[in-house]
Amino acid sequence: MYLNWIFSERTWEMKSSAIREILKITELPDVISFAGGLPAPELFPVDELKEACESVLTKFGPRSLQYSITLGYPPLRKFLAERLSKRGIKVGFEDVMITAGSQQGLDLVGKAFLDRGSFVIVENPTYLGALHAFKAYNPHFITVEMDEEGMILEQVEEHIKKSKPRLIYAVSNFQNPSGITMSKKRRERLVELAKEYYIPVIDDNPYGELRFKGEDLPYLKELGGDWIIELGTFSKLISPGLRIGWIVVSKEVMGVFEKLKQGADLHTSTFAQHMIYEYVKNGNLDRHIELLKKEYSKRRDAMISALKKYCPEGVRWTEPEGGLFLWVFLPEGVSATGLLDKAVERKVAYVPGKPFFAKEDKDNTLRLNFSNASCEKIEEGIKRLAQVFKEYL
Amino acid sequence: MYLNWIFSERTWEMKSSAIREILKITELPDVISFAGGLPAPELFPVDELKEACESVLTKFGPRSLQYSITLGYPPLRKFLAERLSKRGIKVGFEDVMITAGSQQGLDLVGKAFLDRGSFVIVENPTYLGALHAFKAYNPHFITVEMDEEGMILEQVEEHIKKSKPRLIYAVSNFQNPSGITMSKKRRERLVELAKEYYIPVIDDNPYGELRFKGEDLPYLKELGGDWIIELGTFSKLISPGLRIGWIVVSKEVMGVFEKLKQGADLHTSTFAQHMIYEYVKNGNLDRHIELLKKEYSKRRDAMISALKKYCPEGVRWTEPEGGLFLWVFLPEGVSATGLLDKAVERKVAYVPGKPFFAKEDKDNTLRLNFSNASCEKIEEGIKRLAQVFKEYL
Repeated sequence: MYLNWIFSERTWEMKSSAIREILKITELPDVISFAGGLPAPELFPVDELKEACESVLTKFGPRSLQYSITLGYPPLRKFLAERLSKRGIKVGFEDVMITAGSQQGLDLVGKAFLDRGSFVIVENPTYLGALHAFKAYNPHFITVEMDEEGMILEQVEEHIKKSKPRLIYAVSNFQNPSGITMSKKRRERLVELAKEYYIPVIDDNPYGELRFKGEDLPYLKELGGDWIIELGTFSKLISPGLRIGWIVVSKEVMGVFEKLKQGADLHTSTFAQHMIYEYVKNGNLDRHIELLKKEYSKRRDAMISALKKYCPEGVRWTEPEGGLFLWVFLPEGVSATGLLDKAVERKVAYVPGKPFFAKEDKDNTLRLNFSNASCEKIEEGIKRLAQVFKEYL
Repeated sequence: MYLNWIFSERTWEMKSSAIREILKITELPDVISFAGGLPAPELFPVDELKEACESVLTKFGPRSLQYSITLGYPPLRKFLAERLSKRGIKVGFEDVMITAGSQQGLDLVGKAFLDRGSFVIVENPTYLGALHAFKAYNPHFITVEMDEEGMILEQVEEHIKKSKPRLIYAVSNFQNPSGITMSKKRRERLVELAKEYYIPVIDDNPYGELRFKGEDLPYLKELGGDWIIELGTFSKLISPGLRIGWIVVSKEVMGVFEKLKQGADLHTSTFAQHMIYEYVKNGNLDRHIELLKKEYSKRRDAMISALKKYCPEGVRWTEPEGGLFLWVFLPEGVSATGLLDKAVERKVAYVPGKPFFAKEDKDNTLRLNFSNASCEKIEEGIKRLAQVFKEYL
């Protein structure tokens, strides 16, 4: 196909993403899809954002449409720094850079730290968008197993000693895909390891504020100081379509990220930053997050109840205390990839676990999203899915 | 400073950008600055964009705020494909991908084609944002001299034979920084070279539609087919703060760019794409471009008249037929970098030519922007600048 084209090595090495093909199938009409990772669109604050647009263009006019600084709109960065400070993360606005969603944060982290062949420690399974972003820089992935408390840190320390990885990538809260949250003890220990061995830990934290149950745990960045780089985003809290995220790194190295961001896209949309700031500055955000938590909590409960009610023996799942996803284990030897066609025939869809594993995959796993369907659809969808499990297990 | 941090090699090799320090100085109050590359904010269609926001959120609601496909909003891509087709560039919407400004197009091109040590042919001087984007992939730059017809193609062919570059980077219309436009003959020959040697030519074309004088020339992509990759943007035509650009590549290789874009930021702001489409779909764009051309043409004329009126002998400049910039040559041996302080003392600023040269620089050059100041300010600013030249030459 690319007969005459000479691409970079990274380009040749990138495989086509299986999940995108899967998502196409799952978007057929009538299919109840638990496959995507979409927030509930009916909860987007459309009217408030309409007011925000009007207000920004009236107050700021051309300034909201002009080029702006690479690090991002200072009042928005200040808002974020203050919000983080309330959680005990003592940062100023100069430690926060606005990115095009946290996906861009991942790309910039890869660009900043990874050379061909550098080692990166990732959870097994992990967010596939991070694998995709990092792969552009051709690292070697080291996978670390998880239990219900998160990454197994004895494995992490062993790998650190053996391979001196350039970074450790974690989703500490309500992990995508597994729904697992790292325990307090593990958080403390991971932060110690980062300091002891001088290894940056990337805490990708899109769901941290979406806790429905249990007690809030300190963020890694709160425990860890400079070695923790936190990625955040408004995608799950306000709207993903505005593409506004942020990266928190110590000022000491912010210059590196600023330069990389400048080369990548100069800066994030001035207008979208103003729009978000206009929305959050009046205290809308906390109120809106409460609404999301209430609704997502119901959906999560509906999914877990339905799983309990309909699933045959031998099927297990995680019971996350927040976030958007839960993770299902089929009996050993059963292929979730193989079952997907059968599920789609029955008009229900999920993402098989396979693409979330950097190396050795466990194909008896699958990810279910509970934020994008009503409780009724969830009940009906899980019923259909359990039927498939029953027939083919 | 970065005592304990281990970054990627690209990070260590990136130098801090001199121009950003310069721009800080030039933004002091009372300084008439010809240094930036900003479009005229007083011409932004603020009211129409306000209507577009209102209309998008009313008509599309949550859909304009949700995640969307990596390649970009199909109606906007169709609009662009049709617009290009009217110019003789026969492409469909599947040949167009939306990017976060054309700066992201440059980053993706670098990512797609460049390995450490790959050769890239660039004009001398060239757009420094392209040098910055490409440097993240550690290529070697090969510089080709320009005359009033653009790149000297004998040099290009020689370098192709010698080094087999991975790509040729050109700004064919009203180049930033020099204001030079490639002649028709050179365009035809460059396209032949691309085909003959299978080398992608990146035509970075933010100013192509801003021609005030002279006859329209065919775009490289019109002459060249598959080997020409065109980058476009609404930054100079509507608003840079929305960060909406595009890349035109043949469908055959679009999959590569789609994958890279997905890893970089998933997709460009759904809302900003809708907003722009809402604005352009009713024919606003052509009318607005006419307005810009009329005003920028006046400013360009004002700058050239003032240069003629005030400059001492030995100072030369280009007289571009469009775009945002012109390029000044001081007598050999005079340093434009050295004179900048004197100019700022007199409350006028420019960018010295130095950072626009990938390798051997000519420090007796400087870039002047004429889009961001009124004709009166231009006259006054050039008068001050000419005074500095007179005193220090």
